[in-house]
Amino acid sequence: MNLQLSWVPGANRPDGDFPLNNLPCGVFSRAGEEPRCGMAIGDFVLDVAALEEEGLLVLDGGPLLDVPFWNEVMEVGPAVWAALRARVAEFLNEGSQFRAQVEPHLVPLADVALHMPLLVSEYTDFYAGRNHAQNVGTMFRGAENALPPNWLHIPIGYNGRASSVVVSGTPVRRPWGQVKGPDHAVPAFQPSRRFDIELELGAVVGQASTHGHPVTVDEAEAMIFGYVLLNDWSARDIQAWEYQPLGPFQAKATATSISPWIVMSAALEPFRTSTPAREVPLLPYLHEPRPMLYDIALEVALTPEGGRETVISRTNYAEMYYSAPQQLAHHTTSGCAMTVGDLLGSGTISGAAKDARGSLLELSWGGKEPFAIDGGTRSFIEDNDTLTLRGHAQGKGYRIGFGACRGQVLPALADPYARGK
Amino acid sequence: MNLQLSWVPGANRPDGDFPLNNLPCGVFSRAGEEPRCGMAIGDFVLDVAALEEEGLLVLDGGPLLDVPFWNEVMEVGPAVWAALRARVAEFLNEGSQFRAQVEPHLVPLADVALHMPLLVSEYTDFYAGRNHAQNVGTMFRGAENALPPNWLHIPIGYNGRASSVVVSGTPVRRPWGQVKGPDHAVPAFQPSRRFDIELELGAVVGQASTHGHPVTVDEAEAMIFGYVLLNDWSARDIQAWEYQPLGPFQAKATATSISPWIVMSAALEPFRTSTPAREVPLLPYLHEPRPMLYDIALEVALTPEGGRETVISRTNYAEMYYSAPQQLAHHTTSGCAMTVGDLLGSGTISGAAKDARGSLLELSWGGKEPFAIDGGTRSFIEDNDTLTLRGHAQGKGYRIGFGACRGQVLPALADPYARGK
Repeated sequence: MNLQLSWVPGANRPDGDFPLNNLPCGVFSRAGEEPRCGMAIGDFVLDVAALEEEGLLVLDGGPLLDVPFWNEVMEVGPAVWAALRARVAEFLNEGSQFRAQVEPHLVPLADVALHMPLLVSEYTDFYAGRNHAQNVGTMFRGAENALPPNWLHIPIGYNGRASSVVVSGTPVRRPWGQVKGPDHAVPAFQPSRRFDIELELGAVVGQASTHGHPVTVDEAEAMIFGYVLLNDWSARDIQAWEYQPLGPFQAKATATSISPWIVMSAALEPFRTSTPAREVPLLPYLHEPRPMLYDIALEVALTPEGGRETVISRTNYAEMYYSAPQQLAHHTTSGCAMTVGDLLGSGTISGAAKDARGSLLELSWGGKEPFAIDGGTRSFIEDNDTLTLRGHAQGKGYRIGFGACRGQVLPALADPYARGK
Repeated sequence: MNLQLSWVPGANRPDGDFPLNNLPCGVFSRAGEEPRCGMAIGDFVLDVAALEEEGLLVLDGGPLLDVPFWNEVMEVGPAVWAALRARVAEFLNEGSQFRAQVEPHLVPLADVALHMPLLVSEYTDFYAGRNHAQNVGTMFRGAENALPPNWLHIPIGYNGRASSVVVSGTPVRRPWGQVKGPDHAVPAFQPSRRFDIELELGAVVGQASTHGHPVTVDEAEAMIFGYVLLNDWSARDIQAWEYQPLGPFQAKATATSISPWIVMSAALEPFRTSTPAREVPLLPYLHEPRPMLYDIALEVALTPEGGRETVISRTNYAEMYYSAPQQLAHHTTSGCAMTVGDLLGSGTISGAAKDARGSLLELSWGGKEPFAIDGGTRSFIEDNDTLTLRGHAQGKGYRIGFGACRGQVLPALADPYARGK
């Protein structure tokens, strides 16, 4: 597919995140105003809530945009999602007859604050990147036993904490937690010293499933409204001590940052690609009827306070061993009901190369091999470092981007139980 | 404390669940009517929503009872919780001047359906029963290594699935899932053959905490609105294959049943008791400033289809090694924000005796020692069995009960992906 030309400034720039082909969904506010739904286009956000109020944008089941989150649009289903994209494209395409009516509702991105684009119902995080599982397993159990026996059969996942999900730009406070090193007799309660990121993509579930009824991979794909960048902040020292036998808990509950824009599945359609060859056959309920990953280039950048940004990793979403529809289908096998607004983290996306790893744990090999950044080295995150995820699918002369997913890590509270501000 | 006498029929019966001392919170409906908030008293439910509508019950921040769940009451905080109890006690106590106004709003429990008493925001399940951890650990790792090294230091918990929580009476469909026995080369997708219960108490979080700020055990206790009986249905064969390394996922997502009544913390106040002596010192952030468990007698009963009920376990909530306030405080250590409506499962409550175990896994010792029921034996749940949890705190001449928490297990779907009813 080629670039769809738009009359909006910045929309036809080949390296911009937001051409007309994209139209991602977000929530924005102007200074002193309430948050409202918008779609990014070029250097602007289109105030689709205002267009609906004015009656120019009419959606089946509407009004759907009179709330500051996209859940109501999701709930009405794929036919409306497609109608929304088609109608907004009519407004914004080059030569649109609606330009005069629509132009007053463009707000410069530079003038807005961005908010959570959805109400997260529940958050699940997976562990479905082959290289990540191999790397982490090798560090903890040796190369021979790196993969757990179930890994090639199940898209391993665990339930995370929805209340931890924050939008890009939200500062992240280094957590306290219970830790115990192998050389210590008893645990200590202290700030995490091995605070980390995980580079992931998040799938946004836009349709519910029925309690007691699993869904197929094919049905699961149709339930996915879109994707966000996702940083699953992880305290490795807390995780190492707490995770046996029931999995990570507080290590993953400090924060989970997402990009401010949900890129709808329809915008990613031209970038479909297959999961890698299966190393062992999957059970039939996990078979993909068609390619269900996307070719999305991803990068992680680290910026020390007052310093310059270094891109520390470059990889691709196509590295995943399991696709989001496979994960979602597996999620329902027990009869678990999925809900509009559920968020599924892909699992850390690491490529095979050393500089394609999606966590500092892997990049520094457990802290044993600090990696270079501009003006220094890093093993884990240091106070006031800013971590930025970026991603885009590359079309012919255009990109489908997510906007940055960024968070600065603030120093731990001196006394986490001190009250008063 | 003694029985507080009430004019409501059934309220002064010594073996009833719902004396005036209790006043638990539920949601009920009469045939053909919408669900609404009520409080149980004797053989009746008091339509508190109607009393608020009429202006007899006025709560700060109200109306709070014009929705079919108790979250709005929880949100306004402990002062209102206490005021609600005091005012309803004025209506219902023996000799009340309000009897004539209130009596028309009593509905026989026999005439109502009961619904979920709250909107569950997020659900967390703990693993905090000493005997349960010992039993399960012994089965899987031998008696010497039964307890994981962190167990005596951390109230181990994992995030569960809020969408799985259903009210007592809801049938539970035996799940399908991916399983692999030790003698099989590859996994299979099949109905669970080791479907089980876990006898737990659930703490209902009634106040939010601030993202980034842990709460103390003392603060945590004040956040707990009340308690429910909780059955954490568990597919042991699915769990055994999936749980390494990130914990249980689909094994616990089929359903989680709760009692229809939330017993408010205030009603349990006379039954406070201490956690057991610490085997190793806890870190200061987990210290309890006062006894924070409750003496609550619990039992599990199994009824085959068309057969008679057998009580298969009798134990007590006082068996827990960690209290709900300790669990809640630990839950916030990383800065995790707690939300009104969060539900915390205590973990399986097993006593030391063989007939005091809170799961069939333990009662049948992994299926190796089937236990007797009326007319047969059981290792795990068979199709159409009904499992019932009951619990009460025993006062002088009265009980604080939860109502039954009951669920019948239906046969697995023949083809879980067949569509159409």
